[in-house]
Amino acid sequence: MIVLLGGSGYVGNAFRAYLDSRGIDHRLIARSQVDYANRDTLIAYLRETRPRFLINAAGYTGRPNVDACELHKTECLAGNAVLPGVIRAACEETGTTWGHVSSGCIFTGDKGTGTDGKPIGFTEGDAPNFSFRQNHCSFYSGTKALGEEILHGAENCYLWRLRIPFDHVESPRNYLTKMMRYERLLDAQNSLSHLGEFVRACWETHEKGCSPGIYNVTNPGFVTTREVIDLIEKSGVCRKQFSFFDSEDEFMRIAAKTPRSNCVLDASKLARSGIAMTEVHTALAAALQNWVGTS
Amino acid sequence: MIVLLGGSGYVGNAFRAYLDSRGIDHRLIARSQVDYANRDTLIAYLRETRPRFLINAAGYTGRPNVDACELHKTECLAGNAVLPGVIRAACEETGTTWGHVSSGCIFTGDKGTGTDGKPIGFTEGDAPNFSFRQNHCSFYSGTKALGEEILHGAENCYLWRLRIPFDHVESPRNYLTKMMRYERLLDAQNSLSHLGEFVRACWETHEKGCSPGIYNVTNPGFVTTREVIDLIEKSGVCRKQFSFFDSEDEFMRIAAKTPRSNCVLDASKLARSGIAMTEVHTALAAALQNWVGTS
Repeated sequence: MIVLLGGSGYVGNAFRAYLDSRGIDHRLIARSQVDYANRDTLIAYLRETRPRFLINAAGYTGRPNVDACELHKTECLAGNAVLPGVIRAACEETGTTWGHVSSGCIFTGDKGTGTDGKPIGFTEGDAPNFSFRQNHCSFYSGTKALGEEILHGAENCYLWRLRIPFDHVESPRNYLTKMMRYERLLDAQNSLSHLGEFVRACWETHEKGCSPGIYNVTNPGFVTTREVIDLIEKSGVCRKQFSFFDSEDEFMRIAAKTPRSNCVLDASKLARSGIAMTEVHTALAAALQNWVGTS
Repeated sequence: MIVLLGGSGYVGNAFRAYLDSRGIDHRLIARSQVDYANRDTLIAYLRETRPRFLINAAGYTGRPNVDACELHKTECLAGNAVLPGVIRAACEETGTTWGHVSSGCIFTGDKGTGTDGKPIGFTEGDAPNFSFRQNHCSFYSGTKALGEEILHGAENCYLWRLRIPFDHVESPRNYLTKMMRYERLLDAQNSLSHLGEFVRACWETHEKGCSPGIYNVTNPGFVTTREVIDLIEKSGVCRKQFSFFDSEDEFMRIAAKTPRSNCVLDASKLARSGIAMTEVHTALAAALQNWVGTS
């Protein structure tokens, strides 16, 4: 049996759907049933139920966006940094192997330009550069980076870095929906994670017996916002006239309270581990081709 | 009635002794009785008991010293950053005025040298410079600075900054005891807080109706480690041969896992508020004169 924490969120839901599709027995735990933020409670629960794996998809993301975390610092810090530490302690105490949904948003930019003229992405070995320790990050990114710091050296723990999720189903959390709904857009380069591929790949790190540790679970490559808009326009899914901010300065002045992480991640460790993700433009085009609107 | 959280610790105990000496009714709350780290539980408790003030002396300091916080990051972050945020939420929800024991260790060094040749101390208006945001702090200092960040703009909240407590009673937490017990010492400049004067002054910020906000609750002035050792030697309390590290580099290489905050704070806001603290050399000499050893 697999224990799933945070299974009612956007990412947690995708884990449920995936485990269901594979017929893998899992149990969604709500805080109201088992207060898993309490170390002793979680230890007792794990001792009683002896799950063969635990997935932590719980975390604080902010609604409607990351700006909200600036107003809810306590919850954000508790959910993204302290909770992983509590789960670590409980999993190490009970010998439970587990995975934590981390985030690529602890990076900004890229590592320079390669000989092919393309940006070089951050690997699992690079230190986060968009964290409290660099003093220019969002509170959200700061707490996610602290979460990784707290999990440093954790036994039997997979850290799965998600980066701006998308898929073919309209949702306020779906990157494609966001792009279609924002009044104006900021042109930037980003790695992305197809949500369904993300949860499948995360599960496979465990299933295929990969070494515990950090994995950038993103679709290989990167996209610019303008490329994403081109793909949306070509797909015919949304016919509005898209408009861009002139600069990040203008974006920060007009639309945002806290800086955004726009970054390129290197997904080659995952590929080397034998786990496939679709090239990002291809994955985006496919999501748009199968687009399911809710309105 | 006054509610006291963390009353069994070194600082909490001093608050109890002070309130007792003044005949001020107070109630020490243990986590096992009332789980005050839970917002709703604390709100219910405050609604039921309606205290006229709450003192938060709970926090995670690390035993035997701040290095231990590097190994207990979750507890440290939960106790020093998340807990103050939870208490803030509960106190704002119930209209409870309260005080939080913060720390001067979120600063390092001083603000340069004044025309009198002495170091200029950091004031309540200066941004912490020994925090996660500067990326060279101890985990402990990082969490205390995050705690202050989370309390920024809190209603009816006093932030009392303590700086290396000492008094006349031998204790592993007493700065004078530490100086006498360390094998070798690091020469540095520091502001200090006489423990008894600290809790009295904290209480007076409330009692005298000072504006809520940050207060550096330290004895005016600063001392070098060598001055403290001179005072110890003169007092005759300890007759050992003291020895110093050649440099902070040597100290970090040999004796410490994480950098220490050595800093000078400006205590003039407290004085301007009509609250007196003894000049630091005088307070140290008096503590040594009245020294009570336990062995």
